[in-house]
Amino acid sequence: TIDAQRLWDTLMETAKVGGTAKGGIKRLTLTDLDKTIRDWFKAECETLGCTVEVDEVGNMFATRPGKRTDVAPIAIGSHLDTQPTGGKFDGVLGVLGGLEVMRTLHALNYETNAPLMLVNWTNEEGSRFAPAMLGSGVYAGVFDTAFADSRTDRQGVTFKEAIGAIGYRGDKKPGEVKFSAMLELHIEQGPILESEGKTIGVVQGVQGMRWYEVTLTGREAHTGSTPMRLRKNALVGAARLVDLVDAIAHAHAPDAVGTVGLLEVTPNSRNVIPGQVFFTVDFRHPENAVLAQMEAELDAAIEAVAVEIDLDFEHKKVWDSPPVKFDPDLIAAVRNGAEKAGLSHRDIISGAGHDAAYTARVAPTTMVFVPCEGGLSHNEAESTSMEECAAGAQVLLNALLEYDAR
Amino acid sequence: TIDAQRLWDTLMETAKVGGTAKGGIKRLTLTDLDKTIRDWFKAECETLGCTVEVDEVGNMFATRPGKRTDVAPIAIGSHLDTQPTGGKFDGVLGVLGGLEVMRTLHALNYETNAPLMLVNWTNEEGSRFAPAMLGSGVYAGVFDTAFADSRTDRQGVTFKEAIGAIGYRGDKKPGEVKFSAMLELHIEQGPILESEGKTIGVVQGVQGMRWYEVTLTGREAHTGSTPMRLRKNALVGAARLVDLVDAIAHAHAPDAVGTVGLLEVTPNSRNVIPGQVFFTVDFRHPENAVLAQMEAELDAAIEAVAVEIDLDFEHKKVWDSPPVKFDPDLIAAVRNGAEKAGLSHRDIISGAGHDAAYTARVAPTTMVFVPCEGGLSHNEAESTSMEECAAGAQVLLNALLEYDAR
Ligand SMILES: NC(=O)NCCC(=O)O
Ligand SMILES: NC(=O)NCCC(=O)O
Repeated sequence: TIDAQRLWDTLMETAKVGGTAKGGIKRLTLTDLDKTIRDWFKAECETLGCTVEVDEVGNMFATRPGKRTDVAPIAIGSHLDTQPTGGKFDGVLGVLGGLEVMRTLHALNYETNAPLMLVNWTNEEGSRFAPAMLGSGVYAGVFDTAFADSRTDRQGVTFKEAIGAIGYRGDKKPGEVKFSAMLELHIEQGPILESEGKTIGVVQGVQGMRWYEVTLTGREAHTGSTPMRLRKNALVGAARLVDLVDAIAHAHAPDAVGTVGLLEVTPNSRNVIPGQVFFTVDFRHPENAVLAQMEAELDAAIEAVAVEIDLDFEHKKVWDSPPVKFDPDLIAAVRNGAEKAGLSHRDIISGAGHDAAYTARVAPTTMVFVPCEGGLSHNEAESTSMEECAAGAQVLLNALLEYDAR
Repeated sequence: TIDAQRLWDTLMETAKVGGTAKGGIKRLTLTDLDKTIRDWFKAECETLGCTVEVDEVGNMFATRPGKRTDVAPIAIGSHLDTQPTGGKFDGVLGVLGGLEVMRTLHALNYETNAPLMLVNWTNEEGSRFAPAMLGSGVYAGVFDTAFADSRTDRQGVTFKEAIGAIGYRGDKKPGEVKFSAMLELHIEQGPILESEGKTIGVVQGVQGMRWYEVTLTGREAHTGSTPMRLRKNALVGAARLVDLVDAIAHAHAPDAVGTVGLLEVTPNSRNVIPGQVFFTVDFRHPENAVLAQMEAELDAAIEAVAVEIDLDFEHKKVWDSPPVKFDPDLIAAVRNGAEKAGLSHRDIISGAGHDAAYTARVAPTTMVFVPCEGGLSHNEAESTSMEECAAGAQVLLNALLEYDAR
């Protein structure tokens, strides 16, 4: 069994790398803080006798040998990057829970049949560089390295520049470092497990998600001397669309969600009528057909608002991640792992995107969820107990050993 | 008569200090670019035999002696700071048109009765530090130096730090450098003169203006896994209020205007439900009673939206500049000055705020307006012809000489 205290201490200790005053972590992908935690991760894995390989987009693969050398490793892991106001568990629990599994096996000198691999994926959050799950997406062949390299943050720095700056462009080609299966431990990031008093979520798949970018262009002018009827106020247009995105999601609730998370005003001056607004839209639903419907409603809304206020507009879909179904054998192994540990569980579909959604395209994959307080994530107050973290790592270990024993 | 070409060349030459690719100027107050233009202004004035004094908030006063030493100077001038995406004429024309008046008198060795003073006011735009007209406001005793020093830009830099950094904290107390009257030349920044084919606006006064700051606080959460009904989306609240500010102004149109010019989202990440939004409101109307009514409507709107979405809110009025009436004698001098130059003119009320609105509290004051293309200002495309600039400077000179001859 895994060591709950050791796992917790590691979570708390590493949370200092980018730790915020409000108890969260700000450790954006490919920043100096990300380099610090990557260096630490590499060193820790090497202490456990692992070999660490890095691919072109910075994904890190730490391999612990098994009895057999003729089979690909079983992978576990998640990501160490965070949101700008991220919590201490999102992604981190999957990597450090995986590390705890490694440490437990190491302490017992336990040899698995297949090699075991712990992965840290690059740019899972999608906050600095859109889209999310970019590292695992390149690994799975959904995107190529050139696409990843071309991604630009809101300050104009490219992925290529950022990965070069921290020295994490590795020599492995995307997909070259193979694994036979992937198990990702993660906090639920939603309210379902907590509200039903369940400790483990047996994850069936991930809902579909689409991201859009919209730019509205009106005309900058003086707020004091420009009559209302002569204005082309891009922010009034954006405001109506923020409200309409919310309305579209409500109309398809409870399963649909829709959000404008990022919005930038130009020139953003108190006495200038906004000339341009850039904003993003995030739509999710378990069914592609409903997402297509929501997309059509968004297109219509943008056109209608642009006509109302006489604005020019550009909009494009920048990400389309279809709904994913996980592997039945691995799902069964997770369910059995929870049973074996005596933990309450339920089947669940992930509302958040995860690297597992992309690895599912190239290898049998599933996930283990644990609850988080109030269902709150992408928030510095994100919280999960020591017991829940340990429960998740234990189920990960149980499922892994069952799958390895097949 | 003034030299139209010389004035135009000076406008175009100095526009390079902070010149933008789109033909505007980005020369925010108390930045290094502002220091460059201030240093240039001081040197030019000294070439014309002026003495340059600077007060505690960086207002610059260049005095040219007159025949009499027992009377206070007559002041002309405006401001050299710009919006982040400002044009080449807003403020600049008033200072360089004033400089052209000085150069014309200097070339003719013309001695006025009273001394003549050319002023460059600090932070007129109010874009970097709110409120606008801060330098003239301190001069007129509306604010004190400590208040000005405490103003903070959106990056957290105080006025005090900024003025220290460019070395423009002068030794004169606010109001210590006296003048007996003030005449400010400016572009209209609105569409009236152009639409009526008039060259000169004889400015009667300035409408009232009020600025507010609003912060809405909801709860950051994951966009994918947080159901619509459990959200507290601060941006949806802000969006509704942006639209309501527009609606309130439309309801009091044609005389009222209302704008949200600046809006900031926290944490501003594509997959985080916005936890906090900060935005500003700018309301203007020629009558205080209507402004009070608009303010009451804004207060009610904020409370209603906060209840709808379950948000916390803070809001405060950060600026209240009541309607201003200019001095009848100076107004007459401007009208006569336009007649004398054979220029078409009409009486007009300023929709924009100007330093003249504050100097009117301590000395007889008025303004001269010239048209700008399409009424467009606070826009890099802001445009005024060489002839119109010259016409304005000529009326400034005529009015000044008439007033000086009383
Ligand atoms: N798990 C997680 O927060 N992933 C970020 C990608 C997304 O779902 O928006
Ligand atoms: N003239 C001018 O643009 N002043 C800035 C202050 C304001 O009116 O907002």
